[in-house]
Amino acid sequence: MNNVAMIGVGISRFGRRTDARMDELAWEAFKEALEDSGVTQKDIDQFVVSNLGGWSSELLPAVVVGEYCGLAPKPTMRIEAACASGSAAAYHAYLAVASGQADIAAAIGVEKMSESTLPTTVELIGRAGNFFWEFENFGLTFPGYYALYATAYMDKYGAKEEDLAEVAVKNHYYGSLNPKAHFRKRIDVSDVLRSRYVAWPLKLLDSSPVTDGAAAVIFANSDKAKQFVDDPVWIRGIGMGSGTSNLSKRDDFLHLEAAVRAARRAYAQAGVLDPRRTFDVAEVHDCFTIAEILAYEDLEVVGRGEGFKLAKEHQVYKGGMLPTNLSGGLKAKGHPIGATGLAMLAELKRQLRQEVGGERQADIKKGWALAHNIGGTGHYAYVTIVSLDKGAE
Amino acid sequence: MNNVAMIGVGISRFGRRTDARMDELAWEAFKEALEDSGVTQKDIDQFVVSNLGGWSSELLPAVVVGEYCGLAPKPTMRIEAACASGSAAAYHAYLAVASGQADIAAAIGVEKMSESTLPTTVELIGRAGNFFWEFENFGLTFPGYYALYATAYMDKYGAKEEDLAEVAVKNHYYGSLNPKAHFRKRIDVSDVLRSRYVAWPLKLLDSSPVTDGAAAVIFANSDKAKQFVDDPVWIRGIGMGSGTSNLSKRDDFLHLEAAVRAARRAYAQAGVLDPRRTFDVAEVHDCFTIAEILAYEDLEVVGRGEGFKLAKEHQVYKGGMLPTNLSGGLKAKGHPIGATGLAMLAELKRQLRQEVGGERQADIKKGWALAHNIGGTGHYAYVTIVSLDKGAE
Repeated sequence: MNNVAMIGVGISRFGRRTDARMDELAWEAFKEALEDSGVTQKDIDQFVVSNLGGWSSELLPAVVVGEYCGLAPKPTMRIEAACASGSAAAYHAYLAVASGQADIAAAIGVEKMSESTLPTTVELIGRAGNFFWEFENFGLTFPGYYALYATAYMDKYGAKEEDLAEVAVKNHYYGSLNPKAHFRKRIDVSDVLRSRYVAWPLKLLDSSPVTDGAAAVIFANSDKAKQFVDDPVWIRGIGMGSGTSNLSKRDDFLHLEAAVRAARRAYAQAGVLDPRRTFDVAEVHDCFTIAEILAYEDLEVVGRGEGFKLAKEHQVYKGGMLPTNLSGGLKAKGHPIGATGLAMLAELKRQLRQEVGGERQADIKKGWALAHNIGGTGHYAYVTIVSLDKGAE
Repeated sequence: MNNVAMIGVGISRFGRRTDARMDELAWEAFKEALEDSGVTQKDIDQFVVSNLGGWSSELLPAVVVGEYCGLAPKPTMRIEAACASGSAAAYHAYLAVASGQADIAAAIGVEKMSESTLPTTVELIGRAGNFFWEFENFGLTFPGYYALYATAYMDKYGAKEEDLAEVAVKNHYYGSLNPKAHFRKRIDVSDVLRSRYVAWPLKLLDSSPVTDGAAAVIFANSDKAKQFVDDPVWIRGIGMGSGTSNLSKRDDFLHLEAAVRAARRAYAQAGVLDPRRTFDVAEVHDCFTIAEILAYEDLEVVGRGEGFKLAKEHQVYKGGMLPTNLSGGLKAKGHPIGATGLAMLAELKRQLRQEVGGERQADIKKGWALAHNIGGTGHYAYVTIVSLDKGAE
């Protein structure tokens, strides 16, 4: 199996992008990835597009994006794994290079969420739980799903609403420093506590927004990486898991089993022995504040019931035990579904290469970073581990 | 790169399946694939689900299907490449095994097309051309797209409507012999000519139906193939291509450029020197009769302008130059979008292993077969070559 490098990354500006079509957004990210890597479209053997797209009028996003990005007639397909679609696309591109079927493969993720000609975005996202049972019969939508986790967690471990709020405050702080973030306004705990309830105990400011945006990553084998760039970042492990879509079938609402499995698989592939001491920086799936706290625990960075303390004690800021979501996260940077997993990888490449700079730049000492991306409410989980070091060929 | 075998295949009954939900349809096919291979769910490292699904209320088909098939919590994702989604899923599973990331991987394709709670199926399929330009501005739907090809072809080469009809007659004949086909009624050329126009010169009986159905293929590396089955069929090459979604940008309406590229790539990987003399049997993408005729030519089985003669001279029946769509094809077996590419591979495994039997069984002399699967109107093309022979490891 070939080693696989990320040689170029790009991210569009996130936000309510009524100024750009889906294909234009994709190009904004992909163009940056081309420039970052120095490759041109002709060097790319195949590409893949991640997009959930239930709200889009465009039924076949991959070809439309590919054509606008100058990639037709390269082989392509669309990948969907709910909110983990971008990570799934990265996995497919990784397989193409790892297997030798491609020397260079691109993954482009995009979501134009504000364009909904069909049922509303909130209704459609609600269907991304379990449509037939939980959505149609009980009217559960996504804030409701995560509220079940938040209430169970608070009840079991004594966490408070203000502890959850710490995650939002941190992610808005870093979002304020990220020129591509959807929200660039700093907030404090009292702002979060004063915001209106969406599904108790989750409030508006515990929730990630409906965001348009795109991200792109170009992957290459060792030879091509050497040919094009001096600064690749290597994929060291990708772990995946899936879980039941029926919350009623889950053992508890205190962890996402799929994420635990994905993390362990990724650690095994990458040879990570102690996840508490391996990573300089992480991007995790904070669609709601409670989700980021579960992530610390599912990744085994802390024990069960200790995640909220990390947030409370500011151990997930720069300089802390595990700086997390220095991009602003889904919460403040935004969560254009198909783009999110690739935006995480793009951020991590720049963090490890110390290209972010300023207050958002993590201290890079170990040269390892981690992305944790959830689809649905743990329907899918992807954990991707990247490193400055190539590992054994 | 590991060799990759198909060790088990399954197909649900195709048709208007109001008796089964999407996940139940998927299980009908997957259960057969498990039985065919002797593997159980625990042996499968990862799976992938192909589904277009714009008409479904279920936004995340892969998890729902995976759970019902007993595959959760295995890693998964959904793959979409329009009407070539099943082939794209096969490609992903192939990469997973070829790269060594999985020993055994399953691809399950399913489409419940008769369940549309959103805009109508015909409208949604129309969007699978180019939504913003051709569908919204000109109202082109799929029969219209292919009618442009049919008129150009007839004008250039002198083919007649009755020549196109020959494809429908053949495919209905074989469909009548396939217990899983949607349409099992034989028709003759006059039936086709008397059926009503959908988009001149294409008539109702030139068109594939709206069909529910599922198909599944289990892929394995050499070691696992040997462990579980005596009769694997090997993937020898997969070629892919994409094309512009704007028909207005195509050079002509006489060929699908993406299909030509996909075929040449597949031939190169498989070492096929003369496509006219290599294959015992083929499954090609006959969404409309003209599409099957273009397929003969795009696959370089005959020269340009000669495809319609193959049909006319019955060279694509059993015993002819290239027996094609002995399953009944999309035309009569039906075209449940996410399932189609996998149903083609399932049919070819059974054909090569001479398990079909009777009038539908091709004579197997060379041990090679080919699947040709188009997404959109040539937006995507996949050509997959399979063989009884494993090839070099």
